[in-house]
Amino acid sequence: MPEHLLPEEIEARSFAILSAELGETSLPEEELTVLKRVIHTTADFEYKHNLYFSPGGVQAGLDALKGGAAIVTDTNMAKAGVSKPGLARLGGQVHCFMADEDIAQAAREQQTTRAAVSMEKAAHLTGELIVAVGNAPTALIALDRLMKEGKIKPALIIAAPVGFVNVVESKELILGCGIPHIVAKGRKGGSNVAAAICNALIYQAGGR
Amino acid sequence: MPEHLLPEEIEARSFAILSAELGETSLPEEELTVLKRVIHTTADFEYKHNLYFSPGGVQAGLDALKGGAAIVTDTNMAKAGVSKPGLARLGGQVHCFMADEDIAQAAREQQTTRAAVSMEKAAHLTGELIVAVGNAPTALIALDRLMKEGKIKPALIIAAPVGFVNVVESKELILGCGIPHIVAKGRKGGSNVAAAICNALIYQAGGR
Repeated sequence: MPEHLLPEEIEARSFAILSAELGETSLPEEELTVLKRVIHTTADFEYKHNLYFSPGGVQAGLDALKGGAAIVTDTNMAKAGVSKPGLARLGGQVHCFMADEDIAQAAREQQTTRAAVSMEKAAHLTGELIVAVGNAPTALIALDRLMKEGKIKPALIIAAPVGFVNVVESKELILGCGIPHIVAKGRKGGSNVAAAICNALIYQAGGR
Repeated sequence: MPEHLLPEEIEARSFAILSAELGETSLPEEELTVLKRVIHTTADFEYKHNLYFSPGGVQAGLDALKGGAAIVTDTNMAKAGVSKPGLARLGGQVHCFMADEDIAQAAREQQTTRAAVSMEKAAHLTGELIVAVGNAPTALIALDRLMKEGKIKPALIIAAPVGFVNVVESKELILGCGIPHIVAKGRKGGSNVAAAICNALIYQAGGR
């Protein structure tokens, strides 16, 4: 019979186990905290090698969140996973436009994906912005184009789409874009990973 | 520059790539379809070895869904990931009680997790039920107790919590429970995996 534990005990013990198994890394504390939360969410230690932080990327995200930045995600799953109370305490909110009717219509008209059109909608938001992509390479491809056109400038990009087609290529666009970023290199990622990275930043920014 | 592809082309090409890399398995077609959707969602081929189907488990799930069964999940992320249109076409709906105020209060009073109390609430639902757990071992532990007490009898259990504490143990309870099940053995799983398994069944049941 599994031992009866309260939620806080489960989380503390989980982080103790995964920290021990993770072993030494060269990451500064604020990046290590993000990596650990991703491993906590996935039980996948490959992220020790896959998760890339641009220099100052985490700090850029923390500064933005402390200033009330909004988060835009490309899936309602990622939105569901982001800590709304934690973000609200910082003055921020999380958006996902994927289920909006105008997005579906524009995607049909433009023969593209809803995720790509979502990024165009995000470009109309005012205030600081963190873009967190956990699913659609097309979101990152559109984001890269919009940045080059000067239409959007996120404080931080979290690039963690998952899959087999255009995923690696879309992440490479972000690795070269010059905007602060956290990238799950390779094929792996997901809405859960994108949300976990957001939450690790939200908890740090909130002093948890 | 990544190639421009429509969403249907991306999905078809993704499944072609992952099927080729997956290679031969001994799984019947209806189980292989579930495995492929989990790999599509995670880009993680470990599920080839981790994903366990009890004999007749997939068929039990398909029969339940064709009869309009509801799905109960332990996270709003998993609920967000389940195909609501596909499920609605079969006459079903998806529930997650985690954010309900009565659940939070009962968990505090009983010194347990909201996920465990959610399973007690699920036991009061009428009609056929599929329980899909992507996060909380305590949900599976509570479910196992409720089944032994004769208070709930799901048509199928999808057991895919992720993590380091009580996760493996809770899955072993389900492997021995005698109710049809699909279990992501070991530490891995997640809300995305639980939702992917649900969707693979929903699409099959709907004849997609």
